[in-house]
This record gives sequence, structure tokens and C-alpha cells, in this order.
Amino acid sequence: MNHLTIVKVGGKVVEQPETLQQFLENFVRIAGYKILVHGGGTSATQLSEQLGVVTQMVDGRRITDAETLRIVTMVYGGLVNKNIVAKLQAMHVDALGLTGADMNVILATRRPAGSVDYGFVGDVKEVNAPALNYLLEQNYLPVLSPITHDGNGQLLNTNADTIAGETAKALAYDFNVRLIYCFEKKGVLRDENDDNSVIRSLTHDEFLQYKEDGIIHAGMIPKLENAFLAIAAGVKEVIITRPSDIHIGGGTFIQ
Amino acid sequence: MNHLTIVKVGGKVVEQPETLQQFLENFVRIAGYKILVHGGGTSATQLSEQLGVVTQMVDGRRITDAETLRIVTMVYGGLVNKNIVAKLQAMHVDALGLTGADMNVILATRRPAGSVDYGFVGDVKEVNAPALNYLLEQNYLPVLSPITHDGNGQLLNTNADTIAGETAKALAYDFNVRLIYCFEKKGVLRDENDDNSVIRSLTHDEFLQYKEDGIIHAGMIPKLENAFLAIAAGVKEVIITRPSDIHIGGGTFIQ
Repeated sequence: MNHLTIVKVGGKVVEQPETLQQFLENFVRIAGYKILVHGGGTSATQLSEQLGVVTQMVDGRRITDAETLRIVTMVYGGLVNKNIVAKLQAMHVDALGLTGADMNVILATRRPAGSVDYGFVGDVKEVNAPALNYLLEQNYLPVLSPITHDGNGQLLNTNADTIAGETAKALAYDFNVRLIYCFEKKGVLRDENDDNSVIRSLTHDEFLQYKEDGIIHAGMIPKLENAFLAIAAGVKEVIITRPSDIHIGGGTFIQ
Repeated sequence: MNHLTIVKVGGKVVEQPETLQQFLENFVRIAGYKILVHGGGTSATQLSEQLGVVTQMVDGRRITDAETLRIVTMVYGGLVNKNIVAKLQAMHVDALGLTGADMNVILATRRPAGSVDYGFVGDVKEVNAPALNYLLEQNYLPVLSPITHDGNGQLLNTNADTIAGETAKALAYDFNVRLIYCFEKKGVLRDENDDNSVIRSLTHDEFLQYKEDGIIHAGMIPKLENAFLAIAAGVKEVIITRPSDIHIGGGTFIQ
């Protein structure tokens, strides 16, 4: 099977021309088939402020009313996505920006209102693996923005980490998939105050032990739980690292 | 050769949910291969106002400074384009939204500053016919937004009429291309005050005569000159009509 690397990178990196350029230069050095999944939250929050739309976050998720959906569609699907694509084209990489609606790549269902009504937020229902496969075979590089659709004409805001994870799982039948989550640290740290205390590899048993010992906690727990779910679903490895280390094998390896 | 219909529709129609829905229902009734090219100027102007960015137009063209480029990238490439794609998907049409940067579909050159500096405005240099061909063969319906790129990482704002015309010419080698320009009237009128005075067909000689007689004037002249250039370049027919008549053969035919 061919190798496929899926990289998820957050808004902060891709929204600034300098950090975006540096990131993409590292990204294109990764050999083999690639998919890029990006966020864009900082620009969305900024545009919301400029337009007088209040940003409400619950557990790190954006409450998406109709006006906020317009904003994230513009920022994620337009501004951030198309700038990345244009920069990749300048590096002679034939990129193609997609929301979940394009080629019906990611179908989602609107999250039912429970204790929190997230508004126009979508949970991934199905990733169109044949369509992505097909683009990869033709040497196109898909750049996925965190906007999906429900198949009935409604766009939805979907978490970019989830899009990366679900895409990795869906393509695990056809590729040896490596999933890289970029975040601000070098990797999962044994000591959060020591940047050099990166845990190089992590099995599920070790994760449970670290969690029990209080070494891994807070925001890292759901990230790692998702990583182990991806591994259980056939993804070969998940790497948690910082954007500058994606091409040199840095970070924490989960297998 | 297979038939291909390229429809260019302006912002006013595609920016309102009701008129967009009606338009798309007519659009999908057109048989054979199709490409949709859209504008979005009204929303761009509206967002500019909300953000306190002054809209400057010269001869109907938007002066595109850096801030305006951000706005049109968001509105054309994101908001308008992705809403159209989601609505087409709901009609079981496998649409795919593209700027010129995606798959390097439309390469442009920044217009040099002459008597007017249009800013980040691009003139079409090359339409990537093989890429579009390839999507059409796979039964994807390309939805083109009027954003292009220069191949060096710079996005550019490009007139949607021009994108439609250049795309029609580039695909005329592979398809029998019909190019439909939607505007607010039923067609080219013999008497601008009589909506029923549509000129049904127009040769180049007739056009020159009508122009001399003052029957065709003002804004219609560059539109028709472009139409005749498309015909000269191999496009089979150009139709000028209103959005509600695209599927019933209304309007003015130019051959």
C-alpha cells in the first residue's frame, strides 16, 4: 500500500504569511501522498469582532449561529483555504481546496441541541474516500477546510481535528496512513514546563498509566483518546508535534 | 463532440437564497456537461461597507487593494461559491467549487498600473482545459468563482464575464460550447423600453449595423464584442438572456 500523510494544522500557523510559508515549505518536504487539513479560528474570531458578532465558545467549540456560519464559511472556505492553495501552487504542488460540500467529500449531520445548542455545527457522518482517493491518484493535493454539509443544502461548521481523524480512518483501507496533529509544543510532554521532556512513543497502556499518574491531563486527554481511536480503526501511526518538526520525525508517536 | 454549456450568472441572483434556488433548478435542467461561473459583487460591497472599506469602481471594475482582495476572496471563493455547491449537492449534482488557484485552473497576470491602478486584479493568461475536461469527464460540475492566481502565490480578482468567456474559448477544442450570459433583461432589446423587443439572433454584420443605428449602445457593446470574439475563437453559440430563461432557449443568440 502507498503511504499517505494527513497533517492537521491550526489557524495560528496558517493565518500569518510568514508562518504559513515556513510551514508549507516543511509540509511539501514530506514524501508521498499528502492531505492538509487546516483551521482558521483566529481570523474567524477577528472578523466576528469587526462585524460586531459575539463569539461564544463552549469547551473550545464555537457556537455557530447563522451569522457565525457565514463568517466561518468565508474565512475557512475562502480566505484561509485559497491562500494555502495559491502558496502551494507557487511551490509547484497541484493543490485543490475543498469544503465537505465540494465533491461531497465530507457529509455531516447537524449536532442535535442537547444541554448546549451548538447551532450549525456538524458531526462527520461519512468521508467520501473514493473521491479523495481519486484526487490523490491524479497527484492533486487536497486541502480540507473545516466546513461540511448535510446533503440538503446546509453548510455546517466542523472541528478540524475531527475532520483530520475521520479522513485518516476512511483512507486507512487504501493507504498506510500517518496522521500528524500540529500543536504548539514539541510533543506530549512528561513535564509541561520542560519542552525537552517529549514522550517519544506512547502505547495505549502507557497512556492509561500516564493519565492515572497525572502526567497527561486536561486538553491532551481527548486529543490522545482520538488518536488511539484512529489507531484502532486502522491508521498506522498518529504523531503529535509542532509545525516546524513535521518533516523531521519529531514529536510523540502513537502506534 | 459532446455539448458543454457554460453559464455566467451575476451576484444578485446567487446571493439571495430564493433566487439562487430558482436559478439552480433551471440550471440543472440544461442537458449535458455544464460549468457555472458566478459573481458576488453585491455581497462584497456589503461586507466592505460593514468593515469600513471603501468600494471604488472604475468602468464597472472594482479597484482591489489588499483589504478588498481579502473581502472578495472570502465572499466569492467562500460564501457564495460554497453555498452554490451545497445547494447543487442537495439536487444530487456532484458540484465542485474552484478558484483559479485550485488545480491551477485559471492562471492570470496582475494588470499593470496604467492610467488606473486596479490593484490586485488579474487578466486571464491561461485556462487549464485538461483539468476542467478531466472533472467534466468524471461528471463533476465545476463552479468557478472569479478569483484567480498568478502562479507565484498571489490571488487576484478577475471579472466573472471574462472567466466565462476565456473558459468557453479554452474548451471549444474539446466540446461544442454554448456560453450563456445572464443579465437582467430577456435578451438584447431593439427598444430598451420594450421588454418584448428581444433580438432573437445576431450576426456580426447585424451587430455593426445596430451599433451604427444607435439601437445597441452603452454597456451592451463590450458584452457583444466579447461574444463575437468567443465565436471567432470556436465557441458554437453565445446566448444573452435572463436567469429564468436559461433552460427554455430564450434570449438573443449569437453565432
